[in-house]
Amino acid sequence: MTLRTDIPHRRLNALTGEWVLVSPHRTLRPWQGKQETAAREQRPPYDPKCYLCAGNERAGGEKNPEYTGTYVFQNDYAALLPQAHDADTAADTLFHTQAVSGECRVICFSPRHDWTLPVMPVEAIRGVVDVWAAQSEELGVRYRWVQVFENKGEIMGCSNPHPHGQIWASDFLPNEAAMEDKRQREYRATHDAPLLLDYLDGELKDGSRIVVQNEHWVTVIPFWAVWPYETLLLPRRHVLRLSDLTDAERDSLADILKRHLSRYDNLFEVSFPYSMGWHAAPNIPGEDQSHWQLHAHFYPPLLRSATVKKFMVGYEMLAEAQRDLTAEQAAQTLAALPDQHYTER
Amino acid sequence: MTLRTDIPHRRLNALTGEWVLVSPHRTLRPWQGKQETAAREQRPPYDPKCYLCAGNERAGGEKNPEYTGTYVFQNDYAALLPQAHDADTAADTLFHTQAVSGECRVICFSPRHDWTLPVMPVEAIRGVVDVWAAQSEELGVRYRWVQVFENKGEIMGCSNPHPHGQIWASDFLPNEAAMEDKRQREYRATHDAPLLLDYLDGELKDGSRIVVQNEHWVTVIPFWAVWPYETLLLPRRHVLRLSDLTDAERDSLADILKRHLSRYDNLFEVSFPYSMGWHAAPNIPGEDQSHWQLHAHFYPPLLRSATVKKFMVGYEMLAEAQRDLTAEQAAQTLAALPDQHYTER
Ligand SMILES: O=P(O)(O)O[C@H]1O[C@H](CO)[C@@H](O)[C@H](O)[C@H]1O
Ligand SMILES: O=P(O)(O)O[C@H]1O[C@H](CO)[C@@H](O)[C@H](O)[C@H]1O
Repeated sequence: MTLRTDIPHRRLNALTGEWVLVSPHRTLRPWQGKQETAAREQRPPYDPKCYLCAGNERAGGEKNPEYTGTYVFQNDYAALLPQAHDADTAADTLFHTQAVSGECRVICFSPRHDWTLPVMPVEAIRGVVDVWAAQSEELGVRYRWVQVFENKGEIMGCSNPHPHGQIWASDFLPNEAAMEDKRQREYRATHDAPLLLDYLDGELKDGSRIVVQNEHWVTVIPFWAVWPYETLLLPRRHVLRLSDLTDAERDSLADILKRHLSRYDNLFEVSFPYSMGWHAAPNIPGEDQSHWQLHAHFYPPLLRSATVKKFMVGYEMLAEAQRDLTAEQAAQTLAALPDQHYTER
Repeated sequence: MTLRTDIPHRRLNALTGEWVLVSPHRTLRPWQGKQETAAREQRPPYDPKCYLCAGNERAGGEKNPEYTGTYVFQNDYAALLPQAHDADTAADTLFHTQAVSGECRVICFSPRHDWTLPVMPVEAIRGVVDVWAAQSEELGVRYRWVQVFENKGEIMGCSNPHPHGQIWASDFLPNEAAMEDKRQREYRATHDAPLLLDYLDGELKDGSRIVVQNEHWVTVIPFWAVWPYETLLLPRRHVLRLSDLTDAERDSLADILKRHLSRYDNLFEVSFPYSMGWHAAPNIPGEDQSHWQLHAHFYPPLLRSATVKKFMVGYEMLAEAQRDLTAEQAAQTLAALPDQHYTER
């Protein structure tokens, strides 16, 4: 495969079928636009005004318990509700609605208000892995799709810096899930292995987009990355869901999360904002899901510095995602950084 | 069609085939997160430091002429280049690249540094309409897709407040164009009229999502709107491209743009940020494009006030777009506002 990385080209996202326009020469562009505020503030271990700290009262009026590890509760302003389906679904071609049911929960990663995943001890991260797995399993009994995610940083719409993530479970396959399902199914029908296992194979052989590896996991800047430092976290073996992970694989996941996210923070020596989330096989009783491979996406917005992000606007919204540096350039930068968090050195 | 708008439901975007999750009850959610700075600053009619003002020097070293109406130039940091295609295209299933060629231009809407489309005289807006049409026609000879767009406001990644838009032309159909092409083609194959003409018919009959109308044009909050105050601008008759518009239709377009965008500004009494752009029939010699209908999309990010925007993050990036107020609620709000700009009253 010849790959001219110095001229504009498109790359296909094998997982969704969407294209991205890559314009490597464009990094030379001067930036006179919006500057974000860098997330460098110091936080106390406990904040009496934080509605996620242990023992505090939430917006809805409820009181958090004196939790010591992780803590999960029902989102007080849930976007999905466990309502019973009624006959409201209108199937007009041009005005098509669908009734839905679901649940939204919040996961506090730790009572420590000043922590984030990369600065947490590996054992505490392992606790987060376990709660992700347990919640996915529990909600998976009732819902087809369980979306575990984290918005980190003000710039990513996160309204509280207390380390936490969310779970939105639904009785339907959301757009992204449906696209990935289709592509993985099609690939598996004509190949001997699941799409993402063959893809990881290719990445390991090539090597130019790998960020970190350990015994059970690998992170890469995907070939089709849209966000400047977007990454994909993949298990080495074929795994359908978080709950299928062995004890050793969970420890190993906590380890790679710590190392990978420390590199993110080390890049601009700032708490690196991102949205991340898990994609696991859908829960549809009686349906074969062996074309699926568990994975996590990390979508961080920063481009040039702690204060200049990539805007996915005009052309991107109306036409196609566009990036300025190549996936290989981004991987080289992240791979060259130390594993150890800059505040812990 | 019964439409329960008080409970979570999904709506299908008939134009792209994507779904949006609508959670109307969620507007009650308190907001403690990021506050944007409101774009209320006063600008001088001429700024000696602006690289888009008449007579000034640009980043690339070139000097702008003393233009009086609109002014178009080649983007100094173009994401697409008119390079000749070579044999670099790799068609590996999982690592698929495509060579591309294209051109990027900048359109200054006026030498007046302090203007924006809604505060421009209608005659000056008509000048912008003409340049959009002429550029689309000229570039359409060489390129399949001509993306005319505008990023307005710092929050939309616009690095210079001087009123301007962009054109990125390419020899390929970008993702969004390809999706809309497919959906419109499929619809036309089984119906007597183009999708968007039937859609407009439905909207006019229903009335609940209409924002502004004049003799030749209508703006609506589309049934499947993702952004809080997203709108769709449609001609009443079947039109393929901007260059097909008659003189009267162009005047009428300038008129509705002024009125529609004034409502946007009036909503929070602020220069309303957005990304907007035109979608017209692709330019593929010998291919029938009669399934297409010319239209413009407006994607404004503000949600609750001049400083609180909607974040398309975690769930939205990993699963599906989600909105808090219904399209009908948004339309009611915009339709109730005056046509006249708040600074001109
Ligand atoms: O070309 P500009 O205005 O400098 O850049 C802006 O618009 C482009 C096209 O939508 C985006 O790719 C950039 O991220 C954005 O900052
Ligand atoms: O639920 P939160 O954290 O208040 O809200 C945040 O995440 C949600 C899920 O990605 C988004 O819909 C919101 O726009 C964002 O502000």
